[in-house]
Amino acid sequence: MIRRLAVIGVGLIGGSLARALREAGEVEEIVGCGRSRDNLEKAVELGVIDRYRHAVGEAVEGADMIFVGVPLGAMEDVFGAMKGRLAEDAIITDGGSAKGSVVKDAIEAFGELPRRFVPGHPIAGTEKNGVEASFSTLYRNRRVILTPLEKTDLDALACVRAMWEACGAEVTEMPVEHHDEVLAATSHLPHMLAFGLVDALSRMKENDEIFRYAAGGFRDFTRIASSNPVMWRDICIANAPALSKMLSAFADEMKDLADTIAAGNGEHLLEIFERAKAARDRYIDGLEE
Amino acid sequence: MIRRLAVIGVGLIGGSLARALREAGEVEEIVGCGRSRDNLEKAVELGVIDRYRHAVGEAVEGADMIFVGVPLGAMEDVFGAMKGRLAEDAIITDGGSAKGSVVKDAIEAFGELPRRFVPGHPIAGTEKNGVEASFSTLYRNRRVILTPLEKTDLDALACVRAMWEACGAEVTEMPVEHHDEVLAATSHLPHMLAFGLVDALSRMKENDEIFRYAAGGFRDFTRIASSNPVMWRDICIANAPALSKMLSAFADEMKDLADTIAAGNGEHLLEIFERAKAARDRYIDGLEE
Repeated sequence: MIRRLAVIGVGLIGGSLARALREAGEVEEIVGCGRSRDNLEKAVELGVIDRYRHAVGEAVEGADMIFVGVPLGAMEDVFGAMKGRLAEDAIITDGGSAKGSVVKDAIEAFGELPRRFVPGHPIAGTEKNGVEASFSTLYRNRRVILTPLEKTDLDALACVRAMWEACGAEVTEMPVEHHDEVLAATSHLPHMLAFGLVDALSRMKENDEIFRYAAGGFRDFTRIASSNPVMWRDICIANAPALSKMLSAFADEMKDLADTIAAGNGEHLLEIFERAKAARDRYIDGLEE
Repeated sequence: MIRRLAVIGVGLIGGSLARALREAGEVEEIVGCGRSRDNLEKAVELGVIDRYRHAVGEAVEGADMIFVGVPLGAMEDVFGAMKGRLAEDAIITDGGSAKGSVVKDAIEAFGELPRRFVPGHPIAGTEKNGVEASFSTLYRNRRVILTPLEKTDLDALACVRAMWEACGAEVTEMPVEHHDEVLAATSHLPHMLAFGLVDALSRMKENDEIFRYAAGGFRDFTRIASSNPVMWRDICIANAPALSKMLSAFADEMKDLADTIAAGNGEHLLEIFERAKAARDRYIDGLEE
């Protein structure tokens, strides 16, 4: 049971965590923190938080659990603002989509990695933002990855795991670097391709006409290009090493594919498409199990 | 009014055309043609066609309108099989997703381009195949592109346009080369990226784990990688010049993007993502109008 939860950044991710814990009866008091008074007032009105503070240092006072749900570019400042204001046994965790950069930011801000800081990443979300988009079942049957370090306090790790499990999530652990590689492959790279494709088409001459002839598949394929540009700039910079390497390697493969097409090598094309279709169909079967 | 329509290839595309024309009261008799007896029997049972022939030469006899709805790789043989068997005023049109190759196949098969051949491409479809997947409203409010050539008979062109309009489609005309470029950009390139991405991930070590952490966006983004591999091999080969050029140029852009990420150039990233989001949002607004 969490006595006082401080949610720094009461948006879709932080708001949904607060709602889920409240619904599960796993938290006594929830203090919100953020820059927009309107959003925080709305959060109180909706019952997502009990009260709020604009200053991070005030919001974390007396909290035994602190969840940081802010964009990656704001992490270091938030950590810096809570330094020296934390209760002795306070546990800190976060929801950032890249973990190496968050760990680095925490070390910068605190001087060393706090033993009761547990880096985390809930693999969940929608294309919407703000506390009004939050809902208590966002994490049900979704995965949450925790990336504890060698010195991470095991009791803190167990508490963060229990918190997410109370929200209905399936919690797994992996090293920071591995998390960043896996997410580069499954999330960050697809976003780059979708943003890149739509941008490339929009720069073509007669681009209005081009979009006019796009069929249904294009709509699905490019949905993620409607994501928040600032959030994705932050993710790219935070996960630059893994992402730039993977994107560069993928570009090489697309060059090879272009050569295969130009050479009319149907056998090789069929091999690629069949392997991809089989993997995609297995993936969907796995989701439906 | 079409007196006798011959549908060569009674699948999703050909079957839906037959159903739509029947429903609109625009056709007297429909003769199907294909290799699978089961599929053709099913088509008769469903009332999609009146009767069928396995030989193309027999199916087209006495038909005033012939629609060829077979994979691009089968076009030339189908054209060859109807040579010398056509009624004098017969109009031929097709539904192939690349037009340069179909025109080339027609010239190969007939010796010269028949004046009453009108190359066409309905921008519609689902991920399903076969006559059982066909439905009469597939083309309603969808676009059909016709790519007449200099010598194309204007009366034949008008008849094919009227046929698609009777199905509820919006018909536009453009040159063959332009069609192939537009489709390379909006359809063929996205398919290559989706097939390529899923294939690349499936070849990574620990690929089971990678797919396990894929979130909702990945499912949408990769949906088109579950498309028919043989059909896509044929499309790649048929539209090789436009597609390989565009894929190669896109790979160069992704190389540049990887460099931008590695260099941590947030301003440039934001510019790309904002332009893409704006174009994608405009595209969706356009669909909803």
